[in-house]
Amino acid sequence: MMRELDPLLHNRTRLGILTLLLKNGRMDFKSLRDELGLTDGNLATHLRVLENEGIVKYEKTFIGRKPITYYELTKKGKKRFINYLKNLRDFLRELEIDL
Amino acid sequence: MMRELDPLLHNRTRLGILTLLLKNGRMDFKSLRDELGLTDGNLATHLRVLENEGIVKYEKTFIGRKPITYYELTKKGKKRFINYLKNLRDFLRELEIDL
Repeated sequence: MMRELDPLLHNRTRLGILTLLLKNGRMDFKSLRDELGLTDGNLATHLRVLENEGIVKYEKTFIGRKPITYYELTKKGKKRFINYLKNLRDFLRELEIDL
Repeated sequence: MMRELDPLLHNRTRLGILTLLLKNGRMDFKSLRDELGLTDGNLATHLRVLENEGIVKYEKTFIGRKPITYYELTKKGKKRFINYLKNLRDFLRELEIDL
């Protein structure tokens, strides 16, 4: 049962990032950082892992002269995250205890 | 939301250990190890963390001359684990997506 829980996604910080991106579609780095209460370095590290796995993609742009980076789930990443959430739901169901 | 997920318990291996102990009441080291497909060292490390936090307790005994160690959840540990599972359930509910 545990083995079905995607080890890369079964991490609190990554769960936070992916949940926000799933809800909001796309978000810039600072909004993600502030919503999750992370440091720049910590967020960047997790985003890099997610990018390397093809779960998250980013786009760099400018607002006036200010650079801004937007992150969003890839199609494959969304599918993988939804699959993780389903496995989590099934895990809770199969426990058969009243919560 | 993520912050409510107990960081000590939001770990696949510990989730596996605690789920088995919740279901089975108590289990010996070898059964836990074999059910979870862990090495002795890996299981021992996680059990130590759980013991140090007062989540799991153990009892050493003998079957004939063979030593055997049984593990079970403490009352406090069971409460903490159930609370983690409730938070997980609430997290999934509050996502408001059809899984």
